[in-house]
Amino acid sequence: MKPQKSRSSVADLDTPAVTIDLDRVDENIARVQRRIEGCGLVNRPHVKTHKIPAIAQKQIDAGAVGITCQKLGEVEAFVEAGVTGDILVTFNIVGDLKTERLMALVPRVKRLAVVADNEVVLRGLSEAARRHGRDLPVLLECDSGFGRNGLQTPDEALDLAKLAAQLPNLRFDGLLVFPNTAPRTKGFFEAAVSKFEAAGVPLPILSGGGTPALNALEDYPMMTEHRAGTYVYNDVMMVHSGAARWDNCAMTVRTTVVSRPTADRAIVDAGSKVLTREQYYVENFGRVAEYPDAVVANLSEEHGMLDLSACRDKPKVGDVVSIIPNHCCVVSNMVDEVHGVRDGMIEVVWPVAARGKVT
Amino acid sequence: MKPQKSRSSVADLDTPAVTIDLDRVDENIARVQRRIEGCGLVNRPHVKTHKIPAIAQKQIDAGAVGITCQKLGEVEAFVEAGVTGDILVTFNIVGDLKTERLMALVPRVKRLAVVADNEVVLRGLSEAARRHGRDLPVLLECDSGFGRNGLQTPDEALDLAKLAAQLPNLRFDGLLVFPNTAPRTKGFFEAAVSKFEAAGVPLPILSGGGTPALNALEDYPMMTEHRAGTYVYNDVMMVHSGAARWDNCAMTVRTTVVSRPTADRAIVDAGSKVLTREQYYVENFGRVAEYPDAVVANLSEEHGMLDLSACRDKPKVGDVVSIIPNHCCVVSNMVDEVHGVRDGMIEVVWPVAARGKVT
Repeated sequence: MKPQKSRSSVADLDTPAVTIDLDRVDENIARVQRRIEGCGLVNRPHVKTHKIPAIAQKQIDAGAVGITCQKLGEVEAFVEAGVTGDILVTFNIVGDLKTERLMALVPRVKRLAVVADNEVVLRGLSEAARRHGRDLPVLLECDSGFGRNGLQTPDEALDLAKLAAQLPNLRFDGLLVFPNTAPRTKGFFEAAVSKFEAAGVPLPILSGGGTPALNALEDYPMMTEHRAGTYVYNDVMMVHSGAARWDNCAMTVRTTVVSRPTADRAIVDAGSKVLTREQYYVENFGRVAEYPDAVVANLSEEHGMLDLSACRDKPKVGDVVSIIPNHCCVVSNMVDEVHGVRDGMIEVVWPVAARGKVT
Repeated sequence: MKPQKSRSSVADLDTPAVTIDLDRVDENIARVQRRIEGCGLVNRPHVKTHKIPAIAQKQIDAGAVGITCQKLGEVEAFVEAGVTGDILVTFNIVGDLKTERLMALVPRVKRLAVVADNEVVLRGLSEAARRHGRDLPVLLECDSGFGRNGLQTPDEALDLAKLAAQLPNLRFDGLLVFPNTAPRTKGFFEAAVSKFEAAGVPLPILSGGGTPALNALEDYPMMTEHRAGTYVYNDVMMVHSGAARWDNCAMTVRTTVVSRPTADRAIVDAGSKVLTREQYYVENFGRVAEYPDAVVANLSEEHGMLDLSACRDKPKVGDVVSIIPNHCCVVSNMVDEVHGVRDGMIEVVWPVAARGKVT
C-alpha cells in the first residue's frame, strides 16, 4: 500500500476516522528535535507511536540520528519502506525464529543495534551473529524502577557487559533505560558510569527514553541519546503529565453522534475498537475537542458514551466530534490508515505500515 | 486472503500468536445452540467476537438463524466471504455515506435488518430505502439500564414504532435490547408487550443479547431470539461472570518469556497491543494457563509483566506460556490472523476478515 494523495475535505470522511493535524506534527517534530539537540543529546525517536515510515523520514530529515523500534516486525516494515539508516530494537530478541529474522535484516540496514538484559538473550544474539558472520552492536537494558525488564543494579549491568565483551560477534555499546523518569534513574546511571570507568569498560552510549522526560533532560547529564515516541502526536496522558499542551495534540478520532438517548447522554460511533480502554493515570476515555466539558464516560466495543451534563451546548444526532485519545500510540495500531489534514483538507492518507506487527 | 491449511505444530509458531482451540469452539457452538433452542428461541450469534466468516458458517451449520453484526464494515466483509443469509446490524446507521453502503448490501443479502433508537436514524433509513426502491426491516433498540443507546421507556418505543410504521419503505419488526442482564429488562419488556398489544402494534421479534444472559434465558419468556458473541471463545470475564468454565476458553495468546529480571518477575512478549488493557470488573490482565498462580500484573504496549510470587514453579527465559485474555472480542481485533489448533497441531490459519472494520 502506498500513501495516497487526496484533496477532499475532512468533513467528507466516513466515521470513525483517525486524523492527524500535519502542522502540529511538523511543529512537534521540530520542537523536540531542538530540545534534544539543545541538551547535547542525539534524538532517536520511537516509531511505535506512528508506525508510518513517511513520518519517520520527517523525523530523520529534522535531524534524528535514526529510529527506535520495539519489535522486529516494525523493523521489517520500516526497512521494506526504505528506512534503512540507523535502527535500534529495544526489545529482547529470543529464539531462533527471531534471531534468524534479525540476521536477515542486518545486511539491509546501515547500523542495526539490539538490546539484552540477560545471558540467554546475549548468547542467542552472539550465536546468530556468528552463524551469519556479522557483528551486532548491543546495549544492555537497565531497570531503574519502572518494574518492567532490565538489569536491577549497576553491578549486574557491569557483569553482563563483561560477558557481552567476551562473546563472539557482539559489540557492547552501552546502557539503555526506559523511562528516565523512573524513580532511580539518576542514581543508577551515576553509579554505573563510575563502576564501568573503574572497571575500564567504555560506555559510548547511554540511552534514555520517554516523552515526559523531555522536560527534565538536564537532570540526566550522563545520557548521550534520547528515545521518545508519543511527542509526535501527543494525547490526553501527555497533557496530564505536563509534556504537552492541548494544541500540541495532533491525533483526533472523528466520530459521529448516533444517538441522544437522554438529555445528558450522547452515543458516538467510536468505541474501544478505535480509542481503546487505556487509562493509566487519567480518568475517562478521551477528550472531546469541540465539547471540552463533555466526559467520555465509558466505551464498549463500537460505542462511546458521552456524559453531557456539564455542557451548555450539546451535539445532536448526526454531528461529528473529534476525540483526542488517552493514548495515541495504541490508537495508531487499531486502524489500517490515518488521514493527514491541513487547513481542513486531507493532504495525505497514510497506511499504518507496522500496524499489528507484534512479533 | 484465504484461510491456509497447515500441519505444523503449535510449538513452531512465532510469538505472540493468537491460537484457537478448535474442539472447544465446536463444543461452545453446539452447547449454546442447544441451550438457546431449548428455551424456544432462535440463535443469532454476534460475529464481532471472531470476525471470521468460516466460524459464522460453523454457527449457521449448527442451527443459527443468521448473524449479528455491529458495523457495516463487518457486514461488507462477511457478505464478501459468502455469508449472505440473514444479517442484523445492531448499530444506528447515520448519514448518507453509511445509508448508501447499507443499500448497496441489501440486494446481496437474503434478509438484511437494521436497528434505530431515534427519529433521525429512522428517517434516514426510510429515505435511503425509498431512493433504492427497497423495504428495510427495522427493530427499535431499548435501553433497559445498561446506559448505552436505546429508547428509555416502553412508551417512547411505542411512539417510535408508530412512526416507523408510517414511514415509507420501513417494516417495523420488533424490539431489541442489550444485554438482557441490564437491571430493568424484564419489567421493560413486560410493559412493552402489554402496551404494544393494547395499541394493536404487533411485535414479531423481541431480541435479547449477551453471553452471561445465557444462564438466565428463562427469566425473559417474552423474548424470541438471542444474540450472544463471546461464548464462541470465552475469556476471563466470562469465567468471572459464571458464563463459562476455564475449559470452555478457546482463545489463548502464546507468548515467550523474554526476561526474568527478578526472582518473582517474568516479562513476556505480549503487551497491550495484543491483549489490550481491558478490565471492566476483573483484576489484572489475563490468566496464564500453565501458571494459574501467576498474575498478569501490568501491560505496556509490547511487554507483559507477570508477578510470579505465588508460583512454586516459574517459567524461564525462552519458555512459551499461554494467556487467556480478559476480553476475547477485542483481542481478535488486534491481529491479522488466528491459528486454529487441534491436538497440538495447527489445522487452519484464519485471516480475521473483519478486523479493524469500525465504520
